[in-house]
This record gives sequence, structure tokens and C-alpha cells, in this order.
Amino acid sequence: MSQGSRSIQTWDVRSSALARNTHNLIRDIVENLQVEPNPNKPMIALSVGDPTTFGNLNPPEQVLQAVRESLEWHTSRGYGPAKGHQEARIAVAEYCAHQGEVCPDDVILCSGCSHAIELAITVLADSGQNVLMPRPGFMIYKTLGEGLGIRIKFYNLLPDQQWKVDLEDLESQIDDDTAAIVIINPSNPCGSVFNKEHLCEILEVASRNHVPIIADEIYEHFVFSNNEFHSISSLSKDVPILTCGGLTKRFLVPGWRIGWLIIHDRQNILEKEVRKGLSNLSNRILGPSTLIQRALPTILKNTPQSFFDDVLLFIENQAKLAYEELRRAPGLRPIMPQGAMYMMIEIKMAMFPKFKNELKFVERLVSEQSVFCLPGQCFEYPNFMRIVLTVPEAILREACHRIIVFCNEHIIRREKLVDIENDTTVLPDQVIHENCVIQT
Amino acid sequence: MSQGSRSIQTWDVRSSALARNTHNLIRDIVENLQVEPNPNKPMIALSVGDPTTFGNLNPPEQVLQAVRESLEWHTSRGYGPAKGHQEARIAVAEYCAHQGEVCPDDVILCSGCSHAIELAITVLADSGQNVLMPRPGFMIYKTLGEGLGIRIKFYNLLPDQQWKVDLEDLESQIDDDTAAIVIINPSNPCGSVFNKEHLCEILEVASRNHVPIIADEIYEHFVFSNNEFHSISSLSKDVPILTCGGLTKRFLVPGWRIGWLIIHDRQNILEKEVRKGLSNLSNRILGPSTLIQRALPTILKNTPQSFFDDVLLFIENQAKLAYEELRRAPGLRPIMPQGAMYMMIEIKMAMFPKFKNELKFVERLVSEQSVFCLPGQCFEYPNFMRIVLTVPEAILREACHRIIVFCNEHIIRREKLVDIENDTTVLPDQVIHENCVIQT
Repeated sequence: MSQGSRSIQTWDVRSSALARNTHNLIRDIVENLQVEPNPNKPMIALSVGDPTTFGNLNPPEQVLQAVRESLEWHTSRGYGPAKGHQEARIAVAEYCAHQGEVCPDDVILCSGCSHAIELAITVLADSGQNVLMPRPGFMIYKTLGEGLGIRIKFYNLLPDQQWKVDLEDLESQIDDDTAAIVIINPSNPCGSVFNKEHLCEILEVASRNHVPIIADEIYEHFVFSNNEFHSISSLSKDVPILTCGGLTKRFLVPGWRIGWLIIHDRQNILEKEVRKGLSNLSNRILGPSTLIQRALPTILKNTPQSFFDDVLLFIENQAKLAYEELRRAPGLRPIMPQGAMYMMIEIKMAMFPKFKNELKFVERLVSEQSVFCLPGQCFEYPNFMRIVLTVPEAILREACHRIIVFCNEHIIRREKLVDIENDTTVLPDQVIHENCVIQT
Repeated sequence: MSQGSRSIQTWDVRSSALARNTHNLIRDIVENLQVEPNPNKPMIALSVGDPTTFGNLNPPEQVLQAVRESLEWHTSRGYGPAKGHQEARIAVAEYCAHQGEVCPDDVILCSGCSHAIELAITVLADSGQNVLMPRPGFMIYKTLGEGLGIRIKFYNLLPDQQWKVDLEDLESQIDDDTAAIVIINPSNPCGSVFNKEHLCEILEVASRNHVPIIADEIYEHFVFSNNEFHSISSLSKDVPILTCGGLTKRFLVPGWRIGWLIIHDRQNILEKEVRKGLSNLSNRILGPSTLIQRALPTILKNTPQSFFDDVLLFIENQAKLAYEELRRAPGLRPIMPQGAMYMMIEIKMAMFPKFKNELKFVERLVSEQSVFCLPGQCFEYPNFMRIVLTVPEAILREACHRIIVFCNEHIIRREKLVDIENDTTVLPDQVIHENCVIQT
């Protein structure tokens, strides 16, 4: 028997660079935390961005019925086309008409919104190029990009301007290797919603620099009263936009993995290569389960507006509740969201000197109060933590109560604070006045 | 406003190398065929490897019932863990016990078997390395590998030895850059099933050269009478094996996208990096729909053996039917499969001199007889075509009849054939004797 030309003499099987460099930042941080809850208090996880966890929010009967019917059809069991069944793509195109003109050919069905995001990043960016994303921001972009050698660079959001994009910072990050700008609107983790004017400002930056946009709009329509959602694609005159969305959040079925990518390209800039490239990539992993694809037209047409309104009203009320409660927590500064299902809370770390950073703060909050909030480092944003607003009201109320107790127990007393201030001048006056009412 | 450091002055958005280099070979070939059916005959597609297409094969009631129940649980709607729900992984580990010792930690649930294959390739191979796959073989390996710069090399199967691996050729292809050997058993497109002895011979080659194996066993248990299926992992003493499988074919629900990857690693060779690498990669696209994940334990336990037996008996009978019929087609040589759901048929092209290659042969077969078979080039194997055996019996019978008519109409007459033979000597005697009975 002929021998191969292999000189390797032992078992030494390595993993690829892609596998080594793909990281789930949130999981890596959370796994390294010491999070043993207080055995005397039931655990409350405000960390998981899954509205179905507690069972209080459920998809409407129309959605379940559509799947029940689909299950009986033999056409819901076979392979679908790589980009999805035509009927489903027609339905998504109609459902997304607010994004601007969308035809079925502009729609690719995906295995969840994260798959849509993967398509968007991998079609636009090569190894050595970079993609800009917001800080704070949802880190899946980093997870998906870095494994492929795509550099993720951050542009700042401004917490004191309702998390608007720091346009100057954004533009200064753009260079010749920038393949795309990611815009997450409404924002995870901030819960902010950009108004029309601001979206136009962002588009101007992209247009001037000829950089396409990846629009993560999975929280579209999750917008509280007195705010309005605009799809950035509906405002773009030239900038090509790949919009990522899905059933996930709005229909309360994240586990079903139904996402989509929509191609917006008013000036046919993506005709040259990108549209074909997306088509190629959609062959790697076929789209979502055809069981749900077949149900999709009915789901999108039959779900009553009242269902969306009810869910949204619930979340808005939860946001108000958490905001009003946590304003009373010494050393914390909750930032009232305008939409989505999260709230960011600043932790004035200087007022909790016993904790080295916000990781230690959330660790101790678990071990003493059995409340788990996601530390800001999960979003590249230290000194903050994110809470999820979709938990049942009584649980959210209890969690806020425990957080307040915790802050009161750990905040440095006014007299010591003054010492520290004299010592280090890290604390501006206004912080002391606004937040240092010790409640014990 | 500060300007970025971008010198690009126009819209020129390109797609990545990954997108440019990802191709679906079958689709590319099929799309370039002139396949307008004969308007006077209804089209029969023997090309699509989807057993559900014609509606004659359906999943058992137990599978549908399991999903009906899952649909009502709120736990079937939320995100699952990246590697899948623990209960589902336990169930898959038990279901796969014939593969050798499997524990739930060895199981990663995937969005279809093609996702499992993607994980297996991308965890083992880096750009610049190569992966060996069989010729003829299912081309998804090429689709998934080449985009990432992974070279796909082929080793030959031997059509006259029931498509066994040409072991000498296999070993000669192995070099220092070989990251894995793909073994597809039972084979798509050949329908062959390797016996225990041959699997051990393959393992010896892999072991001697220290190359891990990717075992594509999506057709496991699809084995006709007098043959036996052995999982290659059950025979491996040292070679690490990543086995790709799923519900897809055996449960007749390919569109549901439920696959799995099983890690077999008796000598802990993959502990060093690969197991962690797979874990990392599973974060890119979360696994399959939790609606089906939740139903999986019931599906795997409750589906009666009689269902599998019935489906298998049907396919075996279809194989016999097609074989007996197509043996009568002049110029064709069907090769009787031992399992799976396909049959390869050699087209003795020298006997059809009016067709430049088998692509032209299948094109004309469509335009005249409205029967579409997949040309061998889709499997890197010219001069053959593949048919799917899962179509209803009457349709298969009609298709065979039409193929026979077609061959009779186009085969060169004996007298001309002798001329050609004298001219070119391309045709061995036995071809003429066996196949050149002209039936008109």
C-alpha cells in the first residue's frame, strides 16, 4: 500500500483559528463570575434577554394556530429553498414595507436574527477589514466577526443624550478598511430609540464615507409612547442597508429561530457583488425550519395589533416601575429607555469603594440578594449594568427592592464620601447631591 | 465635524472572499442546464434528495404528536443553550448509543445536518489546509470548505467493488495539511454501505496517518436486507471522529432542520482544543428550533420500529424495481445500492455519441421525456447520473420506462457502433454485448 506524504507522527489535532477566535463575550464573563445566590432568597435573573423565560409573556393564539395547521401539511416538512419559501418571503416583504420598498427577492430567511447578522457581516467584511459597532452594544457582532479575522471597532453612544450616536466619534473611526457600520435601533442594551433626524445624521456620515450599514432592527416596533420608530432604510437615499430582523422578540418566540435579512439598495450598489454573495452564503446553512416558514404568512397577517399593544404597554409600565424604584437606589442612575426591553443603570463605583469594579458589584448583589443583573462589561461598557424588563411585575418590584437594600448597605456614608472626595476629587458635586441620600 | 481617514470617494461595495468562494455546485450545474420539459409529458424530477417531495412518505403520527404537545409548552419558545437543551442532548446520546459510548456532553444540536457538517469542517480545518472527501460524493463539503480557503481533495470510490474506498488512493492523498477525512456511509450519491471489515481498513489508514474523521451518517439505518450498518465510530480505537446526523432523512422531516454532531474521542485527543472549539462555534448560530428540541426526546423514543421498517422496505423495493428496469436500458449500467435512497447509473457515453457529455444527455432526457436525473458532475463524477428512489412506485416505473425509450432512441445502432469501435477502440467488448440490445 502506498504511503501518503504525511510526516506527522502523533495525534495532535488542533482547532481552527475560526474556532479559537469565536467567543461569546457575555458567556465568558458570566462564567467567570462567582454567582452563588443567597440560599435564603429565591434567585431573580434580570440578565437573560429572553421574554419567554418567566412564562408571563406568550405568543398569541393566532401564532400557535398557524403552526398547528402548518404541522399537518406535508409541504411543511421538505427542504425549502436556500433563501426560504417564496410565499414566506412575499409575506416578510409585505410585513417590512415600512422599511422602504421591499420585494421578495430582497428577503433571505434565516435561522434566527443572529444568522441574519452572520450573513450581513460575512458578506461585507473580509479578514483584515473592520466593522464599526456601538458601545455599549450587543456583542454578537464581535462573536461573529473576530473568528473570521474581522476587527470590531467601537463608536460611542452618549448616555446623557438618550444614547445617541457620537457622530464625531463614529466618523473618526472610519478608515479605508471599514466594511460596514452597525446600527442597533432600538438599542440592546440601552433601550434607546433614534428619531428621524438622528437617523438622517447617521446616514450622512455613512454616505459621505461610502460605508454600507448593517441595521439591527430586531426590536423594531418596541417603542414606548411619545417615541416613534423609523427604519433607517426608509430614510436612506444612497447608503445600502442590510436590515436584520425576525419573529424573535415581537412575537415572543426567540427559540423558533426565525430571522430574516432584507436588502435595501436604492442605487443598485450591491448588484455588483453583494447580492450574489448573500445568495451564495445562504447555501451554507439552509434557512429556518420549514414548519414555521409555512406558517409565516398567516403569523404575519393574523396576529392582531392588540397583542403587540398589550405587550408593549406591559414593558413600558415595567420600565417606568424600574425607573421610579431604582432612582431611589443610592449610587445608581437608571436611564429611562424609550423602547426595546432593557434598561441600563449606571453604578457610581466611587460610591461603592469596596467593589473593585461593576463585576464585583453584581457578584455581591447575587450572593447577598439573589438578583443577577448583567455587568456592563458584557457590552464593553464598565460601570453600568443592564436589567431585563420582561419579568413579571411582582418579581421586578421585589428585585428593585432588593437592589435598593443592597445599595443602601454598601454605599459609602456621606462623611466617608466627603473624605474620599477631598482625597481624590473623583466625585463631582452633583453626584453627591443627587445620589447620596442614605436610606437605611 | 472631524473627517475620518477614509480615502474612498465612490460607492464600491464588494463581497467577501467567503461569499465569493461559497458555491452550491449542484445548483450551479442545474441552473446552467437547458431543462425545459416536454410540454406533452408531466415532469418527473428524480433529482431532489428530499423524500417528502411527492407526499407519499410522511413522518409517523408519533412525531407529529410530539410537536403538537411541544407547541403548547411555554418552554418550547425560549432560547435554548448554544449546544441545545440538555434533555434533547440526553435523548440523542441514547439514540446514538450504537455509535459507541456517547454522553450528552458529546452532543451538539445543530440546525440540520448541514450545520453539523459546517461545525465539523470549520473546527478542524484552517485556510490552506485540506479535507479529503469521496468521489463521487455529496458536495456540501466543497460548498462549506472552499469559501473558507479550505482545499477539498478527492479520493476515489470503486464502482465495481460496491463503491468501496480505494484505500491506496485515499492514503496517497494525505499530506501534512490534511485536517480530516470525510467518510459518507451509507453513501450519497452511491447508496453503498460499508461492511465492518472495510470500515476497519479505513480506520487503519486514518490511524496510521493521524488524521481525524468526519463521519457523515445521515443515512444511518437506511440499509437494505443482507447488509448491516456499522457506525465507524463504534469501531475506532484511537481515531477521533465527529459524526454528523439528524432527524432529516430517517424521520422524513428534512425541512425541520434538526441535526446533531457527536464527538467520539476514545483517547481524549480532542480535549486539547477541538471540544472547546466546537463549543465556541456553536455560539455563532444557535442550534435548531426549540419547538422541535423539546419534542425530540419523545420523537426519538416513541417512533415505532415498524415505521422505519416500512419506509426501508419501500425504498429497497424501489431500488430493485429501478435496477431491474434500467438494466434493460441500452447504454446504461445501474449499480444496485445497498442502502440510502439513491442509485447511480453509468451512462456509456460512447454509445450516445450525439451527446458531448452526461450533462447533454440529462438535458435531452428532460426536453424529450420530462424526466430529470442529476448529472454525475454534481458529484464530481462524469458519465453517471443519480436518481432518487423515494418517488411513488408508479412514477418511478413511468420514469424508468421513459428512460428506456430515450436510450433506445438515442443509442447508436450496432452497425454504427462497430464502426466507431474500429475507429476509436473506446468501447470494450463486454459493453457491446451487455448493453447493445437495441429495443425499439
